[in-house]
Amino acid sequence: MQDDARIDSNGRSPRGGIDLGGTKIQAVVVDREHVVLGQARRATPTKGGPADVAEAMAEALRDAAAAAQVQPADLAHVGVGSPGTVDAVAGTVSSARNLPDWAGMYPLAKQLRKRLGTAVALGNDVQVATDAEAALGAGRDHDSMLGVFWGTGVGGGIVLGGRPWVGRGGAGEIGHVCVKVDGAHCPCGRRGCMEAYAGRNALERHARELHDKGEPTDLFRIARKRGRDRLTSGIWAAALERGDPLATKLIDRAVAMLGAGVASCDNVLDVEIIILGGGLGVRLGQEYADRIAEAMMPHLFFSDRPPPVVVAALGDLGGAIGASLLTPA
Amino acid sequence: MQDDARIDSNGRSPRGGIDLGGTKIQAVVVDREHVVLGQARRATPTKGGPADVAEAMAEALRDAAAAAQVQPADLAHVGVGSPGTVDAVAGTVSSARNLPDWAGMYPLAKQLRKRLGTAVALGNDVQVATDAEAALGAGRDHDSMLGVFWGTGVGGGIVLGGRPWVGRGGAGEIGHVCVKVDGAHCPCGRRGCMEAYAGRNALERHARELHDKGEPTDLFRIARKRGRDRLTSGIWAAALERGDPLATKLIDRAVAMLGAGVASCDNVLDVEIIILGGGLGVRLGQEYADRIAEAMMPHLFFSDRPPPVVVAALGDLGGAIGASLLTPA
Repeated sequence: MQDDARIDSNGRSPRGGIDLGGTKIQAVVVDREHVVLGQARRATPTKGGPADVAEAMAEALRDAAAAAQVQPADLAHVGVGSPGTVDAVAGTVSSARNLPDWAGMYPLAKQLRKRLGTAVALGNDVQVATDAEAALGAGRDHDSMLGVFWGTGVGGGIVLGGRPWVGRGGAGEIGHVCVKVDGAHCPCGRRGCMEAYAGRNALERHARELHDKGEPTDLFRIARKRGRDRLTSGIWAAALERGDPLATKLIDRAVAMLGAGVASCDNVLDVEIIILGGGLGVRLGQEYADRIAEAMMPHLFFSDRPPPVVVAALGDLGGAIGASLLTPA
Repeated sequence: MQDDARIDSNGRSPRGGIDLGGTKIQAVVVDREHVVLGQARRATPTKGGPADVAEAMAEALRDAAAAAQVQPADLAHVGVGSPGTVDAVAGTVSSARNLPDWAGMYPLAKQLRKRLGTAVALGNDVQVATDAEAALGAGRDHDSMLGVFWGTGVGGGIVLGGRPWVGRGGAGEIGHVCVKVDGAHCPCGRRGCMEAYAGRNALERHARELHDKGEPTDLFRIARKRGRDRLTSGIWAAALERGDPLATKLIDRAVAMLGAGVASCDNVLDVEIIILGGGLGVRLGQEYADRIAEAMMPHLFFSDRPPPVVVAALGDLGGAIGASLLTPA
């Protein structure tokens, strides 16, 4: 009875979705109406290699399936949103810089299929989250949108004329829009990128440098207390809440640079809506979306009709829900 | 005989095109194969108002028609690429900042029709020039392109998936991508825009300031000799050719900032080709297109496969030829 209720008239069973992030792996099982039946989360392994990451992904999905009371093998398929260079047809992921020992190519789809017993589809993490917001979230009623994923880095997803725009496969690298020639060093090796001021990796590096130079902050004390060796979005949010001076200073600068960079993108694209997602974006919420909108104003060419800036409606499940929309080749 | 040869089997006569620039008005008469049968150029009036500009446009078109040995009234229609806010349906142009006393709305199509005796179609100058390069020029064999119009300001025209992308009507304002937060003052009133370093208006202002402070340059002497009160693209080219130190310094900086700004745009769009047009772009030619391509490299995210940067194939007639492609509503 229960299982039958989850199989629609075309015989489609529930689907799985996995969002593979640099910090965490989020898995969901959704029904045909995209309702989340179960979800689970695991930390992304920081040691080992692609096989360890694949195993952690399989475990997260099994947990989500258990929560939804289905067997992984009974899922119609599982979609995966991945960082790095994704070859959806070959089912491989290469050059996933933020994942352990993942410079080369790894047959992720095949390895997951083996572990889960169902078909696996791969997509680019940012594009998958953008598509989810476009189809089911804040972009639902809009023909054009820019997704700004403010997390470990700053990624961008673009929908124009109702369709994803991916260029030659690399469009939407908004984190590497240069907002300050000869500016701060970016984790990517370039200088002055928006991500060099706003990405969580860059923020943590700046915080550590300034703290080492004697600027007081609770950021690292909160991290220790939570047993974290990195500054998560939650730690930044907690520090901001208690008025931590260093956290406030760095996030204020991040907001100013996001304003300049996102406004620059919109001067090029002129979209109907800007959707703020990513770990920091979702965690800091609409208050910070409003602050970014304000920081855009001095740089926006058509400042008499700025695009609304809203937080991703699917929150931090958007990536996994978006992945569940992928269909195997 | 001669006239018959210019009317195709569908009875279509030659068409006219006018590119209305801040410095000059370029008119062409083209046949059905877009071959230029006649062309003429006039200086854009710097005094008076929209009616004086319309009269100068009509004169330029009459001259082009005379060169093509046709009567303006015998043209199938005349297309106009205009700066400012163009309402193609109403046939009006408003807020053309660089034109004399043209802050309000002016019924340009109607006024030109009265003077020329044929239908008139209006379009945005940058988009019209982009469409011309896409249809007939350097973008002919490409599905996506970014037109960079380096002249009085820096404009951008976008073609994605074979179609112009105009956003909510204001896409492509690449000149106002912020390349340096808190940077140089832009003629638009903002700070750090690419145009603040690269636009000819901004370049002239910087040159005047630095010359007034004692930096030696021949720029203004060349202008006087040519009877010009503004630094045209030809004057910049002449100064560069003779190694003028101030002209070299300012253009070097412009190239660096164009590199950062255009690379930023391409990090967002990831197009197949970048086409360099505009007064300065066409005048300085492929040597400078190559320099801009090189200046993009430190900022380009996918620097292993940079898009080619090529000079507009239609040269400085592109705007007028593009305008001739417009069809009256």
